[in-house]
Amino acid sequence: MSNVDLLGRRKFITGLGIAGAAAATPFAMPALASSVSAEGVKWDKTIDIAIIGSGFAGLAAGIEAKRQGAKDVTIFEKMPVFGGNSAINGGLFAAPGTPMQQEKGVTDSVETMVADQMKSGRGIADEGLLRHVAEHAMEALQMTLDAGSVYHPYLQQLGGHSVPRTYQTTVSCGAGITQPLLKQCRKEGVETENRVKFAGFVLDKTGKVEGVKLIKGYYFGEEDSGKPYYVRTNRGVIMATGGFAQNVNLRMAQDPTLTAEVGCTNAKGATGEGMFEMFRLGAVPVHMAHIQSGPWASPDEGGFGYVSNYSIFNFPHSIAINRMTGQRFMNEIADRKTRADAELNCRDGNGDPLPPIMITSWEHAKQHPNAKKVLKYGVGWKFDTLEELAKHFDVPVKALKQQIEEYNGYVKAGVDKQFGKNMGKAKGKYIEAPYGVVRLWPKVHYCQGGVQITKKAEVLDSFSGAPIQGLYAAGEVTGGVHGISRLGSCSIPECMVMGMTAARSIMGA
Amino acid sequence: MSNVDLLGRRKFITGLGIAGAAAATPFAMPALASSVSAEGVKWDKTIDIAIIGSGFAGLAAGIEAKRQGAKDVTIFEKMPVFGGNSAINGGLFAAPGTPMQQEKGVTDSVETMVADQMKSGRGIADEGLLRHVAEHAMEALQMTLDAGSVYHPYLQQLGGHSVPRTYQTTVSCGAGITQPLLKQCRKEGVETENRVKFAGFVLDKTGKVEGVKLIKGYYFGEEDSGKPYYVRTNRGVIMATGGFAQNVNLRMAQDPTLTAEVGCTNAKGATGEGMFEMFRLGAVPVHMAHIQSGPWASPDEGGFGYVSNYSIFNFPHSIAINRMTGQRFMNEIADRKTRADAELNCRDGNGDPLPPIMITSWEHAKQHPNAKKVLKYGVGWKFDTLEELAKHFDVPVKALKQQIEEYNGYVKAGVDKQFGKNMGKAKGKYIEAPYGVVRLWPKVHYCQGGVQITKKAEVLDSFSGAPIQGLYAAGEVTGGVHGISRLGSCSIPECMVMGMTAARSIMGA
Repeated sequence: MSNVDLLGRRKFITGLGIAGAAAATPFAMPALASSVSAEGVKWDKTIDIAIIGSGFAGLAAGIEAKRQGAKDVTIFEKMPVFGGNSAINGGLFAAPGTPMQQEKGVTDSVETMVADQMKSGRGIADEGLLRHVAEHAMEALQMTLDAGSVYHPYLQQLGGHSVPRTYQTTVSCGAGITQPLLKQCRKEGVETENRVKFAGFVLDKTGKVEGVKLIKGYYFGEEDSGKPYYVRTNRGVIMATGGFAQNVNLRMAQDPTLTAEVGCTNAKGATGEGMFEMFRLGAVPVHMAHIQSGPWASPDEGGFGYVSNYSIFNFPHSIAINRMTGQRFMNEIADRKTRADAELNCRDGNGDPLPPIMITSWEHAKQHPNAKKVLKYGVGWKFDTLEELAKHFDVPVKALKQQIEEYNGYVKAGVDKQFGKNMGKAKGKYIEAPYGVVRLWPKVHYCQGGVQITKKAEVLDSFSGAPIQGLYAAGEVTGGVHGISRLGSCSIPECMVMGMTAARSIMGA
Repeated sequence: MSNVDLLGRRKFITGLGIAGAAAATPFAMPALASSVSAEGVKWDKTIDIAIIGSGFAGLAAGIEAKRQGAKDVTIFEKMPVFGGNSAINGGLFAAPGTPMQQEKGVTDSVETMVADQMKSGRGIADEGLLRHVAEHAMEALQMTLDAGSVYHPYLQQLGGHSVPRTYQTTVSCGAGITQPLLKQCRKEGVETENRVKFAGFVLDKTGKVEGVKLIKGYYFGEEDSGKPYYVRTNRGVIMATGGFAQNVNLRMAQDPTLTAEVGCTNAKGATGEGMFEMFRLGAVPVHMAHIQSGPWASPDEGGFGYVSNYSIFNFPHSIAINRMTGQRFMNEIADRKTRADAELNCRDGNGDPLPPIMITSWEHAKQHPNAKKVLKYGVGWKFDTLEELAKHFDVPVKALKQQIEEYNGYVKAGVDKQFGKNMGKAKGKYIEAPYGVVRLWPKVHYCQGGVQITKKAEVLDSFSGAPIQGLYAAGEVTGGVHGISRLGSCSIPECMVMGMTAARSIMGA
């Protein structure tokens, strides 16, 4: 284990050392034609609403648009499969005041959830947007339940949340939401077309978005594939095209250390052309520099993998250990940025990355559905004694023993004197043999940056300060909502609520 | 003094409480027409190079363009006076390996200066661009000397710099550079036109910038004033239009707390339309969220004022005191972000802003040319005893006395055990009566964000990743150079070097 095959973040290792890691797209964007004037455009068809992208935001927008009485609504997806990056996320959904919270005796409110997010956002999150999302989160959760999503019968308390308020799909994956929503869309009459790529807006003389230029029959990665396809929209366009975490040039423009060698949890299609085309139209770029890395990822597997959900579930009753010192180095349930920054500081004597380890009593670790898988696929380990564990990971065993004793004292007392961790979820869960262990290293996960929007999902023009007519945006393609660091499980409610909001705005509801 | 008239940053106070403070422009941008196709444009004139903006970058570009053999070069300035925001900055110029450093026995190098800036940039600054600027900083300094700029005969060591490397104009102001450069421009045949506003690019069929749409006879703030004026460029356009710190809507999009009530050191013309028009053209927005506040500003005067230069000069041999505790709360020469964040944490019992004070022995303070002015204009105070000082600012006198004794021990030992301040410049400078005092509170000062450029000052297209033909940018309008926090006195060399670089690139040098 001393020769780490790790893809460092601050120090680069050439080549792609992770078996099976999805290579990030070095420059996936084609030279798009800019948006064009409607004059002379030959429309292929006219519909009420065009929705670009089929993740949480696009699907929720589709369903809500039909429920608000829209006639022809089509979701266009550039990839061969629907669901976008949403389909491969962790399927974690935060909402305040849910029936499960009431059942478990958890006191929560819109204001508590907003306060948690403002804190993580380091004061520059958009409080109005966060409140709007929190107020409608239950409604969005209900939409998924009605469509057939199934959640675990327990709540999780993710890093930075002051109470347990997070549902998770039983498949531990966003597909547990996108697939039912996609079915629901079709059931309610939303058209869905895949392999159709967004290629620009079509504008009328006043600058209003009158439709979209698309590429039909597009094969991702083959930028010459497909042919132009002009769709006119009676009511408007909803951009739900997601972030740009897989576009290496664009993410390196913000952070030169996020090279192609750095791991990324996102679907390959997250290349950002919808967002950047909106900037060309005059949308305000907000918080582009704030790209979030997930502190729960493993350097031993590609993408989101099996470890991420396993560690998210186990962090509250686990300890994260710096292998140089044998000691804890962070509050295991702090917000994502706090933890990712702390992990990146775990280095060997040469300053090279030395991924820290998360230690959990196997008795508790095995409660998570991925526990057996992390062992099976060699991205997690089980040890009967601390000595074996310490030897395997080259950790000073004496210091580690002391640390565990100390931490178990905190479990007993209910107070973490080292890092102020909320021990509520750790109650009675001592760190004891046998031990489950995974390695941790942050991966690029989420773009906080995007286009500035209003609480009506309108996109503002940088010169006039007014909404761009005929245009709406929802989800990760928008920026500023979460500030410097987004809390886990807050993206699904945001995507869905803002998708629903866009549909309502467009329908004048 | 307990009822502070301060304009808080994290807590808002309605209304403009600062006497004489320049009100930030709530929404200065007109609804510009987007860039237009060259087809059908009736050109008013054709020149070699159009330079938009007359600050450090624009002026250096003008001079260098002529020296490289350009024929017709015109600088267009929207305001009635030339010099832009540069003319009112502090006139501080950092360069490594200068004659004055050699004279004073200071060891410095390009790599040391780059390392200082990378540290302040928190790892996401553009190392290649910083090195390019540091390598050519001496050359730019020479251009100002040749043009007639006069500097103080001493070097300053500003916050975050590991050695003294900063020249300052004798007028303690950027006008000490812009005015000589403007004269030099005219002497070398550069045309200069004021009250001409940039209003968009004119593009040929391939997307190349073929010229600019301007508004001639423009009166700032009267968005209907002036008339269109089309200038064709044989060689290209250099955008040197600066930042957007005075555009409240656009800065609040990045940080909702930077309301119109928050102080700003910038000239009123810093409204960002050049930058945002380049985003419309396809330029990549970089680091837009990183807006720097100056920790040396005073809440007792508007804009940059008299205190800023006074405190920049005095910080190395002064102490900054939290009035609640009577104690120091920061390294007085840490980088700008570190200090601004620390000052913003100085609060009274209600959480309201309680501006900290900077205490200097008057014997040393009076060496600065602004020392008498800060007393004269009532934005600085002089006290014969610590008791009077403590009473005036409501500071616990016992704690303050202890703090000063302790600090004077650090001066003697040459080591600051509290905050690790570099005590080199404090040698022999004890804090003793009589005392000079100013209040401190951060003001919006600099936009690290802007368009992504190459080391040739080319502007990259977000889709193709290639330079936009016919377009160059230099200075604060560009982004990513400095990362999260720019070091003081590093903007003038950057603006000038990149302006010169743009001129060389455009001339194929």
